[in-house]
Amino acid sequence: MSKVRVASFSISVDGFGAGPNQSLKEPMGVGGMGLHQWAFGTRTLQKMFGRDGGATGVDDDFIQRGFENIGAWILGRNMFGPIRGAWPDEQWKGWWGDTPPYHCDVFVLTHHARASIPMEGGTTFHFVSDGIHAALDRAKAAASEKDIRIGGGAATIRQYLQAKLIDEMHIAESPLLLGTGEPLFAGVNLPELGYSVAKRVPTEAATHYLITKDH
Amino acid sequence: MSKVRVASFSISVDGFGAGPNQSLKEPMGVGGMGLHQWAFGTRTLQKMFGRDGGATGVDDDFIQRGFENIGAWILGRNMFGPIRGAWPDEQWKGWWGDTPPYHCDVFVLTHHARASIPMEGGTTFHFVSDGIHAALDRAKAAASEKDIRIGGGAATIRQYLQAKLIDEMHIAESPLLLGTGEPLFAGVNLPELGYSVAKRVPTEAATHYLITKDH
Repeated sequence: MSKVRVASFSISVDGFGAGPNQSLKEPMGVGGMGLHQWAFGTRTLQKMFGRDGGATGVDDDFIQRGFENIGAWILGRNMFGPIRGAWPDEQWKGWWGDTPPYHCDVFVLTHHARASIPMEGGTTFHFVSDGIHAALDRAKAAASEKDIRIGGGAATIRQYLQAKLIDEMHIAESPLLLGTGEPLFAGVNLPELGYSVAKRVPTEAATHYLITKDH
Repeated sequence: MSKVRVASFSISVDGFGAGPNQSLKEPMGVGGMGLHQWAFGTRTLQKMFGRDGGATGVDDDFIQRGFENIGAWILGRNMFGPIRGAWPDEQWKGWWGDTPPYHCDVFVLTHHARASIPMEGGTTFHFVSDGIHAALDRAKAAASEKDIRIGGGAATIRQYLQAKLIDEMHIAESPLLLGTGEPLFAGVNLPELGYSVAKRVPTEAATHYLITKDH
């Protein structure tokens, strides 16, 4: 059965998935880059950045598992870029250059329709302006038997959690405080929605939690 | 220099320091007991419960350090008991029986004045109805050169954090979700108040964070 998954989503000790004031210069919001320190050095991400080496181990295993068997992604508009409101032109094609690391269909939630963008390496960005259920339906059709990964940000994940549409969520808590930004848990009563912590794995750099939905 | 400290304060992954609906039967709120699993089995707490044995190690070290050099405590009204509003009589003397584990002056924040209660073992409960600063002044006078421990709950800690009066806060994050209850970080921008994570120590049972104020 195809699963809907969140993977390698980093949060601060005080529960923020990104800092405030996201911009072209600060894609993760102010202070938000620190959330991902546990991930940057892993072999899987280093390889994506075109570099050899990098650390293996638990952190890397989580990163790797997050990419396994994924047939489509769903991203919130802000994960795709810093532009708000209507698209001024067709120039912005995501943060990731010519060859984004998705290599499959990526559905971007937005209020502003736009033509799909085929990129190098098999990624195609699609823009879905009729809501989270429509995006998931399209992602499921595109993924066929494979899993769907909800990439974020926090607001997008919260919407899918509230609709009980996420089967499995891996979060990594980094040892820093952000104080403000995008809260992952705000207004989401996870136990009430049927979610619980299935697994906890602390490493030197982060505490990993696997949160699953009881069926 | 005398310090104002929070120690061994447990929170859930989603940031709650107690469950909802505290009552005589559920002093930590519904589901809140699970927050403290990392602590119950330690040698220091087992000894307090009058039992031999118990685990030593990092969890126990944190519990032990939390009691070291403490000259006075401050507790929110709800940490002292489940009664809300005016005291119906003088019967309620805390959750802890005749010999509470404080062995020093304990200042309870309340809107409802009440005479001090001397208990066995050196604990005296005092009731402070003129605010958190007055309580801290009295605690400092009582503690002399020793430290003050803010015992909780979450709302009391938040007030002292917002007033930048806490020097050091040890929290232990337990691997469970509460969904609702007493949030520790709500509306508190710790970095803006000068706080940061000075230390992180994960154990099998919890992730410990030492949060300190930059001077």
